[in-house]
Parts: sequence; structure tokens; C-alpha cells
Amino acid sequence: MAINDLFNQPLKVINTGLASFKTNLEKVGAEVVQVSWKPPVDVDKNSSRIIDANQSKIDKANQEALNIILNGKPVLVGLDIALNVIPGMKKNLILHSGPPITWERMCGPTRGAIMGALIYEGMAANPEEAEKLASSGKIEYAPCHEHASVGPMAGIISSSMPVFIIKNETYGNIAYCTLNEGLGKVLRYGAFGPEVIEKLKWMETIMYPILKAAVAKLGRVDLKNIIAQALHMGDEVHNRNRAGTSLLYRILAPAIVETSEIKEDTIKVLNFINGNDHFFLNLSMPASKACLDAARNIPFSSVAVVMARNGTDFGVQLAGTGNQWFTGAALVPDALFFPGYTKDDANPDIGDSAITETGGLGGFAIASAPAIVQFVGGTAKDAVQYTLDMYEITAGENNVYQIPYLNFRGTPTGIDVRKVIEKNITPFIDTGVAHKNPGVGQVGAGVLSAPMEPFKKAYEGLAKQFE
Amino acid sequence: MAINDLFNQPLKVINTGLASFKTNLEKVGAEVVQVSWKPPVDVDKNSSRIIDANQSKIDKANQEALNIILNGKPVLVGLDIALNVIPGMKKNLILHSGPPITWERMCGPTRGAIMGALIYEGMAANPEEAEKLASSGKIEYAPCHEHASVGPMAGIISSSMPVFIIKNETYGNIAYCTLNEGLGKVLRYGAFGPEVIEKLKWMETIMYPILKAAVAKLGRVDLKNIIAQALHMGDEVHNRNRAGTSLLYRILAPAIVETSEIKEDTIKVLNFINGNDHFFLNLSMPASKACLDAARNIPFSSVAVVMARNGTDFGVQLAGTGNQWFTGAALVPDALFFPGYTKDDANPDIGDSAITETGGLGGFAIASAPAIVQFVGGTAKDAVQYTLDMYEITAGENNVYQIPYLNFRGTPTGIDVRKVIEKNITPFIDTGVAHKNPGVGQVGAGVLSAPMEPFKKAYEGLAKQFE
Repeated sequence: MAINDLFNQPLKVINTGLASFKTNLEKVGAEVVQVSWKPPVDVDKNSSRIIDANQSKIDKANQEALNIILNGKPVLVGLDIALNVIPGMKKNLILHSGPPITWERMCGPTRGAIMGALIYEGMAANPEEAEKLASSGKIEYAPCHEHASVGPMAGIISSSMPVFIIKNETYGNIAYCTLNEGLGKVLRYGAFGPEVIEKLKWMETIMYPILKAAVAKLGRVDLKNIIAQALHMGDEVHNRNRAGTSLLYRILAPAIVETSEIKEDTIKVLNFINGNDHFFLNLSMPASKACLDAARNIPFSSVAVVMARNGTDFGVQLAGTGNQWFTGAALVPDALFFPGYTKDDANPDIGDSAITETGGLGGFAIASAPAIVQFVGGTAKDAVQYTLDMYEITAGENNVYQIPYLNFRGTPTGIDVRKVIEKNITPFIDTGVAHKNPGVGQVGAGVLSAPMEPFKKAYEGLAKQFE
Repeated sequence: MAINDLFNQPLKVINTGLASFKTNLEKVGAEVVQVSWKPPVDVDKNSSRIIDANQSKIDKANQEALNIILNGKPVLVGLDIALNVIPGMKKNLILHSGPPITWERMCGPTRGAIMGALIYEGMAANPEEAEKLASSGKIEYAPCHEHASVGPMAGIISSSMPVFIIKNETYGNIAYCTLNEGLGKVLRYGAFGPEVIEKLKWMETIMYPILKAAVAKLGRVDLKNIIAQALHMGDEVHNRNRAGTSLLYRILAPAIVETSEIKEDTIKVLNFINGNDHFFLNLSMPASKACLDAARNIPFSSVAVVMARNGTDFGVQLAGTGNQWFTGAALVPDALFFPGYTKDDANPDIGDSAITETGGLGGFAIASAPAIVQFVGGTAKDAVQYTLDMYEITAGENNVYQIPYLNFRGTPTGIDVRKVIEKNITPFIDTGVAHKNPGVGQVGAGVLSAPMEPFKKAYEGLAKQFE
């Protein structure tokens, strides 16, 4: 066909280049479709070669990892004090969110939360003493993740804090998490004032024993079931937990009434949970961790078992690379800020709550939670698109966590680092945003794509496994 | 342009006829769009003429009606016994769902429920006596709707039954509804065995006083707020009430604990509500009625204030036609049936719960509740389409009840009978389906379009207002 003939016919064009080409073509009446394409991420050539040469080995390992993740059965089986149950817990050990980090590099909220914890533990009488002790070298720090735990925002766990005990009934492994303090000036946002400490003490001395007895009465609370229902009720169980909290409340309340001896305390506990729509977050997080931890140490698997941030660094761990952390700088989310605050006030991304995305929930399930765009920005259509994008980078789809709006399609589950690199798409997270100064609290909620650097390093780290 | 030239160019066709034209055109490569068009309903010519001549008068009246409906503030203010509070209640009066009907024409479930109520009231010792009394002429029957009340399914209210008291705070009018018994063999499905009566007695003697005291303690419970949130949590508050029930439960539980004196009863009441995801239906219904009742008696308004079914007839009332009922045969829903049941077992559409659709909820809000298609059939896309269709026949959109998935668009509210006739589209309802025999219970859940006949009669009835 001569070129004149070609251009004298109606053209249907596929444009893979600059979007301006598309605009111009449309102006002259051609039908144009824009293909969303990005070049692959620039990784070490040797690593590419090795990964390419071992695709089927990796596929097989990923299949195993995904099966294990999907077969997990996370169940709340009790509560106890951190020192009693968290593996390796010590009086002078403080656990924090995200990958390992020294005091010197910690962000404001994390430092503030550590100071608050030291005052709470009675190891310091005031903030000045606490800061001195925290930076003295006498306190050891470690990621929650390295002690079978997770914590939201600063994620600080100290020895006297009560924790939920979540068991993965299929594989027997356990995960722990503190109880959610609620909104406003709270430890996880780095607040350390007297009211913060007082609330923590109330939670330890009044609420914890009551919940412990209630859960013991129930025997177990099926978290997978609650999460599955919550996804049908507008939650994604990271940034929106209203349904999860409500369903949990319905289960707990009769047991609390039955086992609590002082009516006044019963009422306070019920009001406390009712007043905190994020109460369930501190169960959805360890539920995800319990499912993912069971998939650790599967040689050659490129599936992520951890995404976590400490407010300075963003860290990733893979099923196939043991305890290695792959890190990069944490980014500041694109957020809707509360009145009076701007992006300048925001702390970089922080918290272990990205374990929900790692397990096919949170931002990966945001299509189930269109109401959330009122808090994080965007439109309901955006929410659907975010989830659809994540199918590009996952090993499979969830069997139990479904999105009704997508005809009950399972959520994208099992982040495959090969696909992240190949398609140049990083995981999508929707999250709360903290003020960069300790103790101010939440300043907004928003969305972000995880930084690429940890995934590059993870890809290269996986390639080394084959050498 | 010569016809040969026309047909030698790429054609873009709008097809308003048989869909087979579209199929054939597509086969030969033309672009075709199908316009969904139906001829208007065949109504009395004189009525058409009168309505046409008075469109702006009707528009104006409808604006007033819609404003009143949207400004309503339905609030739960207390509980009491039917005889104490329902206007016109008497010991030998039994209220039922739907338009007026005689014993002879009542369906199985309604008869069974009446018999159960008479045994519950102590007016009959057993089903045989109850049936004899029910058909003797000594018992008076009236629609709940004519006594400021609504009831789901058979909707039977007798003098000793406890009822919720819902006040429309903006206009002062009140609506009443019984408490929801739960699932299985229950009075509203026409069951009348000993266990049904026993449960009703427990509800009257144990649960009612506890809830009465709890609501008195709270002062008021904002139902509009709960419903608005529930629509963001996957409910449409007719056929799916899980979120509404959960949110209500969170509010009631601490008040119940505080005011209830016997712990064992507290636990039973909390477990009762927790075990019944439709508990909130008996609040969403009177909440809708309270908003719509305030818009009654607006001369010339073509907005519906009632859609209700008694299992035999489907009845409509308009804002502009006073207490007139316009009726037609109730239809059998298209349902997903429980194992062992088919459409042959189904009772025609029954219950006052269509008051939710009348108020912009239920089937009109089904786009908020995609998970419901698992119970009523269809796909999530269908759910969205059902709601979109209803915008064709309503006077406006809701200000408070929003659908997140449609970018928080207000639900279609205020059924305009002119549009129903003109576009030949009747209101869409999603509902539970009862077995046609008394006492068997629910056999499925499904969807249906309201019958056209009541709307034809309403249209013609409205026209008479102008004569």
C-alpha cells in the first residue's frame, strides 16, 4: 500500500510515545489509543542476566510462596505483655517500625515515641532524661519485624506494653502488635506528654486485662473472616478500618460484658473502642504479618514478605533472601492535609502498616473502599485504577479477600519484584501522614508509590542467591 | 449526498429499534449504538392532557415535596408498647404491611403472622382458634401506613408489641416500627409456633425494657447519620443492613451496659443484636417513613410517599393525592433461591420495606452495595446500572445519602409518577422473598421492578386533582 493511500484512509493509531502525539492526532480526527509504557528500571546487567536465566525456578518458588500466603489463617488468640511473649524482648530493648536504624538517623516522631516509651517504662522521669537515655547507647533498638511484630507509625514497642497475639493456625507462626491508642496526641505520632503516658497506663492496667479475659472467653477471633467481610463494607483495612472495628466490636462486646467485673470499666473500654475507628488496624497488620512470615525463606522466591518504613528509610524483604533488608529513602506522601498543614510539615512515610499492602490489602484493595478518597484525595475511579495497576506487579490474586465492585475479583497479592523492575511500577500505598515534629500528630492522609530503590536492591540481592 | 455516497462511507448508526438490527450492522463493521427506548405507558388520554397542561404546577409542588423529604431528620427517640403510642391502636386492631386488604384476600405469610399475633396476645390458645377469630369479623385490619407505622414482610403489629419511636426532628412527625426478630422461623414470615411466640415474649419482657432504658440514656440516636455512613460501608439499608446494624450496635452497647441491671440479660440482648444483621432494617424503614410522611398532602405533587406490598397487592400513595391508595397485583421477584426452593415456592412481593426505595435507599442505592449481588443475583455492574436507571424517574438527588462509587452522587430520590409513565420505567426494588406458605420463612432474595398498574392509577388519580 502506497503511503498516500495509507494516510488517506481513516487511521487507528496506537501511540506509545509522548502523549502530545496523541493530542495532535485527535485534533485532526484520528482514533488514537495511548499505551501506558515505561522503560524497565535500570538494574545491574549481571543481575538481569541471572534472573532471566532462572525465571522458571523463580516462578516455582513464587507459586509456593503465594500458596503459603493465601492459605494462612490469622486468628487472635489472646493478649499478653510484650516482655512475656515477644521473642527476644528485653527491658532495655525498644522495637520500632521499618528497617534497622540508629538513633542519630531516626525522624522526629520515632524519637518522640521512644522518649515517651522510656518515661512510660519508668526509665526516665521527664523528656530531657528520656532523650539523654535514648541516645546514650544503653538502649538497644531493633525492627519490630525482626521480633515477629509490627507497629503502626513510629511503631514503638517497649517491654511493659500489652500486645495482641495473632496465630497463623495453618502454619503455627505468631505475630504481635500493640493496641491502637486512638487519634490526636498519641505515642505512635511521637507524643510523650503526661496525657499520653496516662492513657498508655490506663490501657495497660484497665483495658488490657479486660480484653485479655474477653478473648480468652471467646477462645479465638477469626481475623481473616472479619477482613474479608470488611472489604465488602468499604474498608481496605490500612487507612480505613471502620467496618473491621465495628465487626470486631460486635464480637468482643458480649464477651467483655461477661468477663469484666467492674461495670464502669466495661463502659469505658466499650466507649474507647467505639471512639477509635482505627482500632482494627492493630489486628489487620499482624494478621497480614502472620500470613507473610509463614512464606519466609523460600529459596529463589521474588515475592515480598515485608514492606516497612521507619520515617527515614523504606525497607523491603523477600521470601527468597532470608533476613536481608533492602532499603532506600522513604518518600513524603501526596496527601490531603488537615486545615493549617502543608507538605512542608509532613514526615516521610512511616510505619509497618505497609504490611497490609504486602499482603494484598490496604492500597492494593482500595477499589473496595471508594469512600476513602474523601480523605486521601482523588476520585472513586482513581481508587479502582490504583488496584487495577497492582495486578501488574503481583504473583497472583487473593482467594478470600475480594473486591465486590470488580465482580469479587481477589485482591492483587504477592508483590513480585521482577515485575516491579520489568514494568517500572512500584507498590501503591495509601496511608496516614505524620507531622515531622514529634508529638504534633496526624496532619493528613494520602497516597504514594513506594520508592524504587529498595526494589532494585532486592532484585540484585535475589540474583546473588543464584551465584 | 447521493445514497451511494452515504453507504460507501464509514457509518455511525444510532439504533432505536430491534436489537437484531444492531447485531447485523456490527457484523458488517459499522459502529452502532443502541438507544434504550420504550413507548410511553398507555394511560387515559384525558389524564395525559390534564397532566401536560399543568406541568409547571406539578414541578413546583414536587420541588416542595423533595425539599421536605431531603430536610427530614429521622432520629430514634425511644421505645414503647404499640397500644401506648401508635395513633388509633386498639386491642382488636391488627396492622399489616401494604395497602388495605381483607382476610379473604390475604396471602399465606400474612395470615400466619396474624394467627401468631393473636396467640401472642392471648386472644387465642392455638392456631385453630386463632384462624377462627382472625376470620370472624371481630378483628379489625388496617395498613401500618395508615397508623404512622411500617412493618417488614407481613408487617404485623398488635397492641402488646414493643415499637421503636422515630421522630422527624425537622417537622415533628413520628413513625413507628416493631423490632426485628431475626432470621428463620419468625412471625414476619408467617410462623406461629411456640418458639416464635416465646421469642416475641422475650423481646417484649426482657429486650424491650433494656433497649428502652438504653435509648433514654442516650437521649437520641441520629439515624440519618448512621444511614449515610452505612451507604459508604456497603449497605443499601433494605436488603443489606450489616453496617447499619454494626454502627447502631457500637452506639447502643455502652448505654445498654450502663442501664441494664442483670448482666445475663445484657449479654443476651447484645448477642441477639449481633446475631441479626437485619436488626437495623426496622430503623431504616421508619426513618424513611418519617421523612416521606412530612411530605404528604402537597397539592398537585406527583412524588410518591409510599410504595408498599401486602403479598397480594402492591400499593402507591402520592404526596398530592392525600390518603388514596393506587394498587395493582404484587409480582414475584426474580430471586436467587436457597437450596431446595424455586420460584414456584415464592410468595408475591410483600412488606412495607419498599418505603426505603421510596426514600432514595434500598434498590435505589444498590450501587453502594455491590456485595449484595451475591444474594440477589447479577453482577456488580448490574448494581450500578439499577441505580443509574432510577435517576430517570426521580424528582432529584439526595443531599445526604451518597454513593461513593459514583463520585458521591446523591441517591435518586423522590419518585415522580409522570416520569414513570413517560419513560415506561417502574421503580427497582431488591428484597427478601418469602415462602408462599405461612411459617416456612425466607426462601431467597432478589430483585424486581414494581408493577406498572399502581402507577398508572396514581397518574390518573393525580389528574383528577385538577378537575
